[in-house]
Amino acid sequence: MWVGLGLIFATFINLAIMLELPKGKLISVGGAEDKGTDLEQGFIQRNRLNFFELGILKRIVNELGGTDKRIEVITTASSIPVEVGDNYLDAFGKIGCTNIGIIDIRKREDVFEEEFINRVKNADGIMFTGGDQLRLSSIFGGSEIYNILHDRYQNEEGFIIAGTSAGAMAMSNTMIYQGKSELAHLKGEVKITTGLAFIGNVIIDSHFDKRGRFNRLAQAVASNPQCTGIGLGEDTGVIVSGGNHLEVVGSGAVVIVDGRDMRYNNITDVNMGEPIAVENLRVNILVRGNQYLLKERKFISGSTSTNA
Amino acid sequence: MWVGLGLIFATFINLAIMLELPKGKLISVGGAEDKGTDLEQGFIQRNRLNFFELGILKRIVNELGGTDKRIEVITTASSIPVEVGDNYLDAFGKIGCTNIGIIDIRKREDVFEEEFINRVKNADGIMFTGGDQLRLSSIFGGSEIYNILHDRYQNEEGFIIAGTSAGAMAMSNTMIYQGKSELAHLKGEVKITTGLAFIGNVIIDSHFDKRGRFNRLAQAVASNPQCTGIGLGEDTGVIVSGGNHLEVVGSGAVVIVDGRDMRYNNITDVNMGEPIAVENLRVNILVRGNQYLLKERKFISGSTSTNA
Repeated sequence: MWVGLGLIFATFINLAIMLELPKGKLISVGGAEDKGTDLEQGFIQRNRLNFFELGILKRIVNELGGTDKRIEVITTASSIPVEVGDNYLDAFGKIGCTNIGIIDIRKREDVFEEEFINRVKNADGIMFTGGDQLRLSSIFGGSEIYNILHDRYQNEEGFIIAGTSAGAMAMSNTMIYQGKSELAHLKGEVKITTGLAFIGNVIIDSHFDKRGRFNRLAQAVASNPQCTGIGLGEDTGVIVSGGNHLEVVGSGAVVIVDGRDMRYNNITDVNMGEPIAVENLRVNILVRGNQYLLKERKFISGSTSTNA
Repeated sequence: MWVGLGLIFATFINLAIMLELPKGKLISVGGAEDKGTDLEQGFIQRNRLNFFELGILKRIVNELGGTDKRIEVITTASSIPVEVGDNYLDAFGKIGCTNIGIIDIRKREDVFEEEFINRVKNADGIMFTGGDQLRLSSIFGGSEIYNILHDRYQNEEGFIIAGTSAGAMAMSNTMIYQGKSELAHLKGEVKITTGLAFIGNVIIDSHFDKRGRFNRLAQAVASNPQCTGIGLGEDTGVIVSGGNHLEVVGSGAVVIVDGRDMRYNNITDVNMGEPIAVENLRVNILVRGNQYLLKERKFISGSTSTNA
């Protein structure tokens, strides 16, 4: 009986913790503004990760508190981790960072290595690179590193988890891991699983300007309109504070798909492979300086002057 | 003075005619469901225009009233008119049509030829093929054929103007003629001019599922939310009756972008080439059987069962 009560008590404690706003920040970036790089295809041209130069990387470093802060770059998602790691080292180096580490966890077994666990414990911020987000969820899910990241994000003021492309998409609880743009209007073509779940009730998509992914985010949102879709353009990101307040950074657009007022939809009526109908999605397109409150589903224009 | 009064009177007559609902129908199709054909690039693989087999072409013929009705296929938009014309002849032939003509007006001078004018006067329906919609507007605009088409569409019950891809996009008053998907979130990158104007207050885009064109339709709508954006997927079309009632046909999706409730936007604040922010677009995704009233901006689900 005491064991039972203990479990219930532990559950309450966990619930209470979950209800508290996270003290850390998430920074999700839609992908690099480049034409020669496709990390999903394992192809990269060096020095093409322009977004580093355009301010997002600097912003991450500023949020962390300076160029001496320790950032661990986790290259697990990529199939070419050495090239990607070097690229991040170059880029962080260019803006004066002196304390960058690369953690290349290749397989599930590596995730239990003491060295990596300690480095994640001691870092000031974490950066997940692009690649395949399914590698992130399947390798990190439920591991000690996963728990440390959740715990630090929840409780440590100033702790930052950043991610680009696959690294951004893995941040949400609901994670798209596959779905060709040209088929994404068909039921079942958008493949979803559980992500690293640093934030709930959202679905993050990346490369949103260049890869025509509106339909896939719409399908993901229509399947459960409790979730807000966040489509991140290239060289564009969001900084999420308190698990709710979202600020856009970078040079492109962020498309927010809000299904709260969704009315008719045919998702449960049609067969797999049939096209999906949805009435009344609300769509906001945000650019640098615009903000959004996820819980309130509220657009805040802020200052968007680009002449300043 | 009598001339002046006459002009005023004529204007009133014209206005009265414009206020009457058109008796004809428009059938706009988003493009062929194929991988081997790109009319904009002047490339086609024969017999790949599958949408003909999937019912849309049959529906056009049914709307016309039978396989003996005279349809003139206008190949002006295409840079490979002979191949495209043959393809349409094959496809219409397959469903038993016996009275199909090809009108290949290549340049502005051709539009004045008596033979073509008479054929447009006498056809039961017109089909504009894909290609470059700017060829359609620049070659037909203001010509006698243009006037005949407007007059017959307005006044003749059963007269049909159909169009695929460029042929669909040219139907609206506001016509997108250029705009790369990957740049369409930037001000000025979506190029717009006046189309053949069979229908006002809409902007029609095509190849919507495969080419990632949400941003360009959003920009076009945000610039003037009086216009409703209609994004037609491949092998998917709309039949527009009375200039207002829209019914979806075909195998894919139609995305309706409604800007009536648009709030904040930065379009007049930012420089050319800067990204555009828009608050509160309303988006509906329609499939076969769904309907939409343009003036009322109303989604009607109708029957969407695909098991029937």
